[in-house]
Amino acid sequence: MAKEVKLLKTWSSPFGLRVVWALKLKDVEYDSIDEDLSNKSPLLLQSNPVHKKVPVLLHNGKSISESMVILEYVDETWKQKYPLLPEDPYERARARFWAKFGDDKGLSSIWNVFIKQGKEQEEAIGEASENMKFLEEELKGKKFFGGEKIGLLDLALGWLANLVPVLEEIIGVKIIDKQKFPLLSAWMQEFAEAPIIKETWPPHDKLLTKFRAMREPYLAAAQPK
Amino acid sequence: MAKEVKLLKTWSSPFGLRVVWALKLKDVEYDSIDEDLSNKSPLLLQSNPVHKKVPVLLHNGKSISESMVILEYVDETWKQKYPLLPEDPYERARARFWAKFGDDKGLSSIWNVFIKQGKEQEEAIGEASENMKFLEEELKGKKFFGGEKIGLLDLALGWLANLVPVLEEIIGVKIIDKQKFPLLSAWMQEFAEAPIIKETWPPHDKLLTKFRAMREPYLAAAQPK
Repeated sequence: MAKEVKLLKTWSSPFGLRVVWALKLKDVEYDSIDEDLSNKSPLLLQSNPVHKKVPVLLHNGKSISESMVILEYVDETWKQKYPLLPEDPYERARARFWAKFGDDKGLSSIWNVFIKQGKEQEEAIGEASENMKFLEEELKGKKFFGGEKIGLLDLALGWLANLVPVLEEIIGVKIIDKQKFPLLSAWMQEFAEAPIIKETWPPHDKLLTKFRAMREPYLAAAQPK
Repeated sequence: MAKEVKLLKTWSSPFGLRVVWALKLKDVEYDSIDEDLSNKSPLLLQSNPVHKKVPVLLHNGKSISESMVILEYVDETWKQKYPLLPEDPYERARARFWAKFGDDKGLSSIWNVFIKQGKEQEEAIGEASENMKFLEEELKGKKFFGGEKIGLLDLALGWLANLVPVLEEIIGVKIIDKQKFPLLSAWMQEFAEAPIIKETWPPHDKLLTKFRAMREPYLAAAQPK
């Protein structure tokens, strides 16, 4: 029988993975549907007519889009099992603030390191480091961003642990250095090795191939004409 | 005696107004501190070292930034009086989704109509209209986005009611037309006339002067050289 929860995602999207992790932590059974973004399914187009993007969560026929909105929905719908956000309003605000910071600033600054070269890349590394310093600071005295356990902010920043090592390997530049960011580096390892995260991690080789291909157009555009 | 809640804002920021409205709806007493963004106060720089932006809410010495994060904090901290978000997780997700849509897509598309001219402006009008159609649809069968009462999404979209008429007057172009967007137009009026909103509305003439000045550099850049 079809399950009442369906998740539209892609195999590699870190935004889709956020939701996968949340559902697994909550022990929610769901059907996973991998989309091909070059040929989007009618179900995706109909469920997210605004952005036409994954992830989309379908629950009892209702659709929810935007990964952070979905995480809050999952946390509020399956309340008892494994709360993703803490109880305290200030701690909740902190988690939301840093999740937004990760999406608005962190991700783009690291992406710039990946697609730029030479002096522009050096500048991008400077900016990414400034952003990572804030996250390093936020980890002080904690194992996970959520404290002793993986919480909403850990899931939101999962792309750091998931993607950064892949990007670093491709460009041969260390973005998150152990000496400079000891807490963040330890967190990346700890998070990646948590059983529920590890079992859903996309294959490293496949990610390498995908992101190498994604970098090609930027390299080509940077060639002297 | 100083109040335990302080709000750092500017006189005209629609993001600061969101918080003003939330605190007023909740009957929370607070001290309002207007910042001069060309000469930011040490308190602002210290309270929001990441973005150095308003609004910042200070509550019992703790600081919270990002207007939508603040709104959720206010709703969770002063729970009983005037809930801003509905109870139902799906309805909460909807409000959050459209608030994000307003910030990510709505605001920038309307801003483009304001700063562009000629063919580029026509294209921007097309895009803004596409976005407004979604919001028009979301208002079907409702007086406010929150239903019978102003809710979180109304506050998040308050800039529509507050700013759009000012921008339209400056450029002499109707962006949100009554014929095309009857529900949205009615909402703009209804929202603007709600007592708690009306009494905090920045003076129309001052807004005209401010936004005329903000448009100058774009006009100058568009002059043939």
